[in-house]
Amino acid sequence: MNILVAGLGLIGASIAKTLKKNTNHHVLGWNRTESVTAKALADGAIDETGAIEDLIPLADITIINFYTEAIVPFVLENRNKFKKGSIVTDSCGIKTKICRTLEKEEFDFTFIGAHPMAGREVSGYDASLPTLFDNASFICTPTNAPKAKTDTLVELAKEMGFKRTVVTTPEHHDEMIAFTSQIAHVLACSYVLSPLAPQHPGFSAGSYRDVSRVARINGEMWSELFIANKEPLIREIDDLTGNLLKFREAIESENSSLLIELMDRANKIKEEIG
Amino acid sequence: MNILVAGLGLIGASIAKTLKKNTNHHVLGWNRTESVTAKALADGAIDETGAIEDLIPLADITIINFYTEAIVPFVLENRNKFKKGSIVTDSCGIKTKICRTLEKEEFDFTFIGAHPMAGREVSGYDASLPTLFDNASFICTPTNAPKAKTDTLVELAKEMGFKRTVVTTPEHHDEMIAFTSQIAHVLACSYVLSPLAPQHPGFSAGSYRDVSRVARINGEMWSELFIANKEPLIREIDDLTGNLLKFREAIESENSSLLIELMDRANKIKEEIG
Repeated sequence: MNILVAGLGLIGASIAKTLKKNTNHHVLGWNRTESVTAKALADGAIDETGAIEDLIPLADITIINFYTEAIVPFVLENRNKFKKGSIVTDSCGIKTKICRTLEKEEFDFTFIGAHPMAGREVSGYDASLPTLFDNASFICTPTNAPKAKTDTLVELAKEMGFKRTVVTTPEHHDEMIAFTSQIAHVLACSYVLSPLAPQHPGFSAGSYRDVSRVARINGEMWSELFIANKEPLIREIDDLTGNLLKFREAIESENSSLLIELMDRANKIKEEIG
Repeated sequence: MNILVAGLGLIGASIAKTLKKNTNHHVLGWNRTESVTAKALADGAIDETGAIEDLIPLADITIINFYTEAIVPFVLENRNKFKKGSIVTDSCGIKTKICRTLEKEEFDFTFIGAHPMAGREVSGYDASLPTLFDNASFICTPTNAPKAKTDTLVELAKEMGFKRTVVTTPEHHDEMIAFTSQIAHVLACSYVLSPLAPQHPGFSAGSYRDVSRVARINGEMWSELFIANKEPLIREIDDLTGNLLKFREAIESENSSLLIELMDRANKIKEEIG
């Protein structure tokens, strides 16, 4: 197949490199900043490049790796250029807004929202890795897509080496991602914004390092993702602050049996589920 | 020197193993459960054991590795048995309560509170490692101890291989530890107590893993530590929930410039300080 990777930042370029490493598909690549495309070509991360309007009609699968707000406009603007019968997918971290908008349209290609679940604290082409998805989940949210098209996309993810593939609804994806990823970023940032953070050297160990890691964040990208997933994320923030207040009250009233009960429940979840 | 390590759980046994690996001191070891002491002796983690009342008078330095509430009573009960001119120290994660109580007493030995800052999600002798402190800070809070005694203890920490030594007040230690360690444990537990946590497999990646890691917790030990450090910890919980509410309001009102500003500040702290 001809696979077009549009957008060669951390995720797009890692997808391109993974396709080159683990599959025999022909990889077309495109990036808004041309110097990045040239570098990807020189690195062998892509096989071919060109003007986006020339690449789109060639692709059996187009993978769009843009910021949240740019995905729907890109699909709609190019609606008459995508190859008939082809699959168009994306790698954006939220799915409901994108998939429920695009499923209302009539296309002669199939749009299937997807989320290859991996990331790094650094971004851009130079941070991309051919191994980024080795232990990752590939989640797709096909809504009304024909089963055969979903199967093709899932097969590609397996061929690429994703550890696990999940097919679900956009709503379930977004609710889970609000918990597993978005709130983790919100709390890492909230944590390092403590006035004591700058004094931590000499007083910190593994727990500071791990809890604060994802505060290395691309604010522009994540603010779009947070706002696009507002309701599930606010529910998670409310759950989290509710639990923090339970701890606060138990500590304030020196209620050690309640504290032990809360921690034993948390410990059990980590022990049993990981 | 004869160094007595009293309590051979994760921290005590790691101290004993580190002393054996990196120094030539004679290591006396004692644990309430005798089978643990026997194992430590068989492993070469300690050189010698015996009844606690026979070991205490021999030690030039006694390192007490018990739960928070047991440290002051142990020092007071054995006040007439410690070797004259010796140093008695501990490894407890909070310092004000212990040090400000013991500094009021007249001893013919010197008590210096200490905190070798390392830990694991697992506890007990079998989890102990001779490398646990390789990248760790050794913090001590001498209050009114003579400088020569503090210097001896700090030298020992350097000999053991601690990466960094910090001498400070118990109050500053406790405030910093509330931020770097205790609140990180509170928030990891609060996080995994979300009703969505059990469904995370397939939807999680590095951020879930890292933020939730320290929810593998010994509730009994940590509830003592939290209550003993109540005021600084509650201040940190209030700071954290205050920051979470700033994020909540910015997301609710779709204020992306405020969200970007909050994340840029957090990112800058991580970038500059780590």
